Amino acid sequence: MAHFKEKYHTYKTLIEHRLAHCVTKSEPVSLYAPLKYILSGGGKRIRPMLILLSCEAVGGKARQALHAAVAIEIVHNFTLVHDDIMDHAASRRGRPTVHIKWDENVAILVGDELVALAYRELLKTQSPAIARVVEIFTEGVVEVCEGQAYDKEFETQKNVSLNDYLLMIGKKTGKLVAVASEIGAVVGGGTAAEIRALKSYGALLGRAFQIQDDLLDVVADEKEFGKTIGGDITEGKKTFLLIEAYRRARGADKKLLRSIIMNHGAPLKTGKPQAQSTVCVADVREIYHRYGVIEEARRLITRDTVNANRHLNMLKPSDARAMLYGFSELLLNRNY
Amino acid sequence: MAHFKEKYHTYKTLIEHRLAHCVTKSEPVSLYAPLKYILSGGGKRIRPMLILLSCEAVGGKARQALHAAVAIEIVHNFTLVHDDIMDHAASRRGRPTVHIKWDENVAILVGDELVALAYRELLKTQSPAIARVVEIFTEGVVEVCEGQAYDKEFETQKNVSLNDYLLMIGKKTGKLVAVASEIGAVVGGGTAAEIRALKSYGALLGRAFQIQDDLLDVVADEKEFGKTIGGDITEGKKTFLLIEAYRRARGADKKLLRSIIMNHGAPLKTGKPQAQSTVCVADVREIYHRYGVIEEARRLITRDTVNANRHLNMLKPSDARAMLYGFSELLLNRNY
Repeated sequence: MAHFKEKYHTYKTLIEHRLAHCVTKSEPVSLYAPLKYILSGGGKRIRPMLILLSCEAVGGKARQALHAAVAIEIVHNFTLVHDDIMDHAASRRGRPTVHIKWDENVAILVGDELVALAYRELLKTQSPAIARVVEIFTEGVVEVCEGQAYDKEFETQKNVSLNDYLLMIGKKTGKLVAVASEIGAVVGGGTAAEIRALKSYGALLGRAFQIQDDLLDVVADEKEFGKTIGGDITEGKKTFLLIEAYRRARGADKKLLRSIIMNHGAPLKTGKPQAQSTVCVADVREIYHRYGVIEEARRLITRDTVNANRHLNMLKPSDARAMLYGFSELLLNRNY
Repeated sequence: MAHFKEKYHTYKTLIEHRLAHCVTKSEPVSLYAPLKYILSGGGKRIRPMLILLSCEAVGGKARQALHAAVAIEIVHNFTLVHDDIMDHAASRRGRPTVHIKWDENVAILVGDELVALAYRELLKTQSPAIARVVEIFTEGVVEVCEGQAYDKEFETQKNVSLNDYLLMIGKKTGKLVAVASEIGAVVGGGTAAEIRALKSYGALLGRAFQIQDDLLDVVADEKEFGKTIGGDITEGKKTFLLIEAYRRARGADKKLLRSIIMNHGAPLKTGKPQAQSTVCVADVREIYHRYGVIEEARRLITRDTVNANRHLNMLKPSDARAMLYGFSELLLNRNY
């Protein structure tokens, strides 16, 4: 475990360092100042880490995949900047979002430029399979957009099934994680079977990650989590928990959940003072517990993670593979 | 000339056809319906035409470059969708803009997806130089974003020099045209000198095209032009004409132009009824004529076009080269 932490830290530093140096320009200032702001805002750096480890797990050197790793982190940041505009989110990672600190026009343009910069960085990858890498990456961007479109559509849709939800998060969250592990494997020169295995690993891990995110919104420690607990509930966001609880609930419980769903993503107008509105989050959490959906989410996350790890079993044993098992463990047990 | 028109039409049909077929999906509908709407909205298709002709002018077959041609048209449409949000433009090509017909969130996402689809289309290009093609394309997207950032910055800047302006349009308009002719030459297998020549041709032509656009806003026939004449004036847009006229003007003329510049891009609040506000556009046009900036714009456009054509002279004579001369002529004499 000491080794895991140490190596993780080394790789994270490598990523942060390259990320800080891939944008050198400072003009036009309305573009590059916010761009540096967003790229230096921290984050878990899960996707780039996954690229480096996947590359190494098939016999490559992590550094071969560094540009690709940074590229995927940049594109991830693009999705955050644009999603935050669409969601009217005021803060991210404890700081004002770009469209709040600057304005919407700036945020639109910064997001656009991030996509281009991601491709620029990706193209620095030295690999005979570079065309394939760019292709995989591009399909990732396409699906992330589709996922976000579904997510916005679901806000005003009354009947969102669990399948709809899984399709959406598969695209919005899972795809980019799968792209990360797949690109790592391709750049590392993995066999077709190894590439397939790592892609499947990423897809399952990405899904578990998103359900965990939904879960943390309800059960996390507010300080550690870095955002207000219950935000998804007050916003009527159709998470795994809400969808599954609504399906299971009966009577007054179902009525309460329906009122949240009908709320169309706008903050709940309870007409009650703040304290009572907080009670509402507690009420919903209690319903989630009572109908076993918290437990069900945990079961799904564990199942996906176990299945993800199963794909790793076909890889040759290596330090990087051990790191990947540790990585799954880390995501499974994260509190933020 | 009959041959020019016929071939132009054939190539335009080829482009339109591929453009109509490169998006087959229809869900999520909030993404793909507006996407098809924007791609089927017509347009002059200048950039893709330039790719096909440049490819042929260095000895390639136009069809080799068709995917790249469509890719650049898609990315051009991305810039239109996002610029229209930023400029609060209500109509484009005689139809409501995406953010008006749908909403801003949809328009942001549609623009994002267009970038990804452009790359997807570009990657279909069969060329040993595909990595270089993607690189050139990516630098184009980067510079277009930079150009747009400068353009928005200039709106609230009091002193914008002619050099600032030329830098801005070089990025916002010129770059993508230069990228088009350069990519065409690369895909067609041109020599280094041929590629350089066609790139320079595109850059000069792109600049002439933008100054012509500024000019048409003042002198075009409203019906043919497809938008309201004098829009740049009432919006206080820092065009070649306004910047150069302001530099040259004296006394009351300078004062009037300053009031337009200070207006920061918001529609002129003259406090006068519509008819008199129209007089204002006429006043400014008269100032432009009196200080010779209309003539100066025409001189610049002609100079750039002549210089652009000079680069074509080094290519081997061919039908495609003749088409490119004709293409310059067409842009030089366009009324819309």
